[in-house]
Amino acid sequence: MAKELKGIAASDGIAIAKAYLLVEPDLSYEKTEVTDVESEVKRFESALEVSRTELSTIREKAAKDLGEDKAQIFDAHLLVLNDPELTGPIEESIKNAKTNAETALQETTDMFIGMFESMDNEYMRERAADIKDVRKRVLSHLLGVTIPNPALIDEEVVVVAADLTPSDTAQLNRKFVKGFVTDIGGRTSHSAIMARSLEIPAVVGTKEVTASVAKNDIVIIDGLEGNVIIHPTEEQIAHYEKIKSDFALQQAEWEKLKNEKTVSKDGVHVELAANIGTPNDLEGVISNGGEAVGLYRTEFLYMGRDNFPTEEEQFEAYKAVVSGMDGKSVVVRTLDIGGDKTLPYLELPEEMNPFLGFRAIRLCFANEELFRTQLRALLRASVYGNLKIMFPMIATVNEFRQARDILLDEKAKLKAAGTEVSDSIELGIMIEIPAAAVLADQFAKEVDFFSIGTNDLIQYTMAADRMNERVSYLYQPYNPSILRLVKMVIDASHKEGKWTGMCGEMAGDQTAVPLLLGLGLDEFSMSASSILKSRSLIKRLDQSEMVKLAEEALNKSTAEEVVELVEKYTAE
Amino acid sequence: MAKELKGIAASDGIAIAKAYLLVEPDLSYEKTEVTDVESEVKRFESALEVSRTELSTIREKAAKDLGEDKAQIFDAHLLVLNDPELTGPIEESIKNAKTNAETALQETTDMFIGMFESMDNEYMRERAADIKDVRKRVLSHLLGVTIPNPALIDEEVVVVAADLTPSDTAQLNRKFVKGFVTDIGGRTSHSAIMARSLEIPAVVGTKEVTASVAKNDIVIIDGLEGNVIIHPTEEQIAHYEKIKSDFALQQAEWEKLKNEKTVSKDGVHVELAANIGTPNDLEGVISNGGEAVGLYRTEFLYMGRDNFPTEEEQFEAYKAVVSGMDGKSVVVRTLDIGGDKTLPYLELPEEMNPFLGFRAIRLCFANEELFRTQLRALLRASVYGNLKIMFPMIATVNEFRQARDILLDEKAKLKAAGTEVSDSIELGIMIEIPAAAVLADQFAKEVDFFSIGTNDLIQYTMAADRMNERVSYLYQPYNPSILRLVKMVIDASHKEGKWTGMCGEMAGDQTAVPLLLGLGLDEFSMSASSILKSRSLIKRLDQSEMVKLAEEALNKSTAEEVVELVEKYTAE
Repeated sequence: MAKELKGIAASDGIAIAKAYLLVEPDLSYEKTEVTDVESEVKRFESALEVSRTELSTIREKAAKDLGEDKAQIFDAHLLVLNDPELTGPIEESIKNAKTNAETALQETTDMFIGMFESMDNEYMRERAADIKDVRKRVLSHLLGVTIPNPALIDEEVVVVAADLTPSDTAQLNRKFVKGFVTDIGGRTSHSAIMARSLEIPAVVGTKEVTASVAKNDIVIIDGLEGNVIIHPTEEQIAHYEKIKSDFALQQAEWEKLKNEKTVSKDGVHVELAANIGTPNDLEGVISNGGEAVGLYRTEFLYMGRDNFPTEEEQFEAYKAVVSGMDGKSVVVRTLDIGGDKTLPYLELPEEMNPFLGFRAIRLCFANEELFRTQLRALLRASVYGNLKIMFPMIATVNEFRQARDILLDEKAKLKAAGTEVSDSIELGIMIEIPAAAVLADQFAKEVDFFSIGTNDLIQYTMAADRMNERVSYLYQPYNPSILRLVKMVIDASHKEGKWTGMCGEMAGDQTAVPLLLGLGLDEFSMSASSILKSRSLIKRLDQSEMVKLAEEALNKSTAEEVVELVEKYTAE
Repeated sequence: MAKELKGIAASDGIAIAKAYLLVEPDLSYEKTEVTDVESEVKRFESALEVSRTELSTIREKAAKDLGEDKAQIFDAHLLVLNDPELTGPIEESIKNAKTNAETALQETTDMFIGMFESMDNEYMRERAADIKDVRKRVLSHLLGVTIPNPALIDEEVVVVAADLTPSDTAQLNRKFVKGFVTDIGGRTSHSAIMARSLEIPAVVGTKEVTASVAKNDIVIIDGLEGNVIIHPTEEQIAHYEKIKSDFALQQAEWEKLKNEKTVSKDGVHVELAANIGTPNDLEGVISNGGEAVGLYRTEFLYMGRDNFPTEEEQFEAYKAVVSGMDGKSVVVRTLDIGGDKTLPYLELPEEMNPFLGFRAIRLCFANEELFRTQLRALLRASVYGNLKIMFPMIATVNEFRQARDILLDEKAKLKAAGTEVSDSIELGIMIEIPAAAVLADQFAKEVDFFSIGTNDLIQYTMAADRMNERVSYLYQPYNPSILRLVKMVIDASHKEGKWTGMCGEMAGDQTAVPLLLGLGLDEFSMSASSILKSRSLIKRLDQSEMVKLAEEALNKSTAEEVVELVEKYTAE
């Protein structure tokens, strides 16, 4: 019997394949006393042996499919497995304490992990993490349960998971993983952003997909509408195969727009740019015909490591992006950490409301050397292309002035030391705090551009945490109040001869694009995979008509009425 | 040597008196073994005896100064002290386990407290709290340290504390407590609001006053400017005695305005109303010449108890306030719980950002019967005077419609059952979410009035938690963005023939009042103690000039420039 679930469409496209369940297995066990210690030691050794074979296979597979760098983690795991200084004490513990192998493994490794984690040494802390991973694997073989090895996937599947972590996604091979579906998450969650970056269909937030799907069940993922069908009927498969091929045809059509400018039917040019997190994302920007990088999130440079990136490391990354875009505009956002984003090596205060707290520019002002290091790296990279700098979470004009003055100070110092720095770096701010939107006319006298960060702007304007499911109904991009703030910002920038971009999720939303075009937005920055679709849409729109549509939307009283208005127009 | 501290001026006036330190004493001790158990038991019994005498004194004193109802808590404590079922086991424990009395007291009472707290019975939980209080007292006598007994204060003092809890303030006798000063808190903290309600001078947020003052030190509290002087010189005392008598003269002048209307120099009438929490606050409203109640916070009805107030209890409270105001307007805000305000008997979800979460109207919609009960009580009270109802945390027009429809439904049901309900109840909303301010013109078509809640509006507009010290510099009432939102709301209401009030702290702020008058605010609702001062100020202002001043302020780029502008005008 087919079963249908409704989730949030997170990445376009249709996938039809067997389910691969990427779920944490139950590794619980009882502590017991053993009488036959010899056979218990043998049971442990055989679990070690199976783990060894498995890891070697994964290692080879990863090297072949994902590259030698991603395979190296498994070498470290093999070293742990083969270390007699670890396995010896576990066997001793079985013999002396007469405990079962599971308990001996757990207790002995706990001791090593505790020891390594307490050392003030990143290498040792990594060893602790390796031991944890290996322990999980050996434990699974002792208990006879299977742990998922996404790197081993060698046939076409759709991945079914509660949620996907960055390390899970690093192991996914796009050749075989045709799509994924999760229990939790929304359009702005990590896994959704990742799916769009990998350009595979995804549905998130189904709440119950892991509970509804068994291994190898056939699953249809409809990333266009947010539908998931488990055990589809033949009619359903045929229906979705048709949609899939139609979508492929449409993509081929869009593909033709790759090297075109984004111009509306009545000849108004806007810029379609991409949001990126690392230099690796440039490939997708170029293959999708991005006209610029509208948001380079520099946080990723600071994440997944044990100390701050050096000025040199940052310089290399910024230079790679700026020169990789070959003269096209690259807007770099300075560090936005705090709120829901933390760094293991930077202690942050416990806060009652972190989204209303010590984050982004606020944190940079309090850690000025951290901020200055990033600015120096950016200034040095500025000569390799068209670099623009923007500051996040600016609430007051004085904050912008303070950030600008620090930047100018570093620039002067670099120049005095003989380092080349571009003299045409545009300086902008994120508009993501209501106060900055309302006062945009004052800001516009001093900044070169605005970039509207809708994810935060919406949550502050509606006073609703976008991660909190109980109030998620208030996260309303189409609420007329949001559209009015967007208009205030755009008008204010134009009055001073400046420009406004948007780098929140809304910029690539197909219902929002007509409105934003009508409101006069200059640059739309989105997931690279949304660019061609949006270009196709804009080419079919008359900007002067959109101005009227937007004007009408601004005078509606609810988000629902705005959506209805746009849908009515689109249907005509 | 005189020492000066700077804090936040929380309540007007000057106090000069000896310091009374209301600080938690150090009650730590070592667990030791005793050899002479008999003398240890005697030591325990003598601590009991001293505690008994002390409690009896406090009880008498409280009955005399604060009233019999506030004295009853000490009866409960005396019962605990005299209960052999509690003291017996403690003595047994000293004898059998040979532990010192402190340990025996702690461990035995822990057992009782744990037992009582685990019972699903409010009476038993109160007994657990009583045992804790008594334990603290007995322990202090065992250790020979003094615990503060604010109810025993019988000479003029200024209270010095880290912070003041509601139960601390309940024990303060206004006759002797001339002022207070705390380490923490801001103008909107509980202790600051309490000081204004008690009408005693207070300075909060000095950070270090408890560390700087010793018992009986002479301290000057300057609640006008936020200064605290410890060990003042004779010159300083003379200087502040002068300010104090000037202030008393000024208060006498203000007093004369008690029965006057609030009219600007050029004849524009505005309404000066008061914020209240309980029917008891009415006395202060009337003695300070309040023209209305602009905000009746109904949360207090729900707090400090073990279950929801019944419809009948609420009805009595609302009726008392409405009839007590004798036909003058009373704006009642429906329940605003959640965020930083919780109820012991209502389980709320753990949230990452409670200020952006499930609170106020959002919570009422999800607990509709709770909401309907309050609305019925309000509707029934409406016939006793001039009742207006407003809903908190409204973000969208649909939320207002939903709240209104529930109210109309209850009204229809009451009328069908033959209950009298007023047909002229005005319905309004709090404007405390930026989205509602920006869309005020749409709301104005459907509501009867607005009341701007600046405390929340500022924190959302600036994206800065007003309780978080690290970002408190962003809590800027004078930021032009805030003034612009205020103007949008006022203009929108006037365009539809409606009115706008303000019930946040800003409404009684002497720097803000001229601007608000110029922006066209109709009703200013503040601490009752600020009313006469504000009336005096407004009578000296020309509204038409304030319109120009406000216009200028709206075009400034920073809060600092706005303050400078107002100060320059006021100095002229």
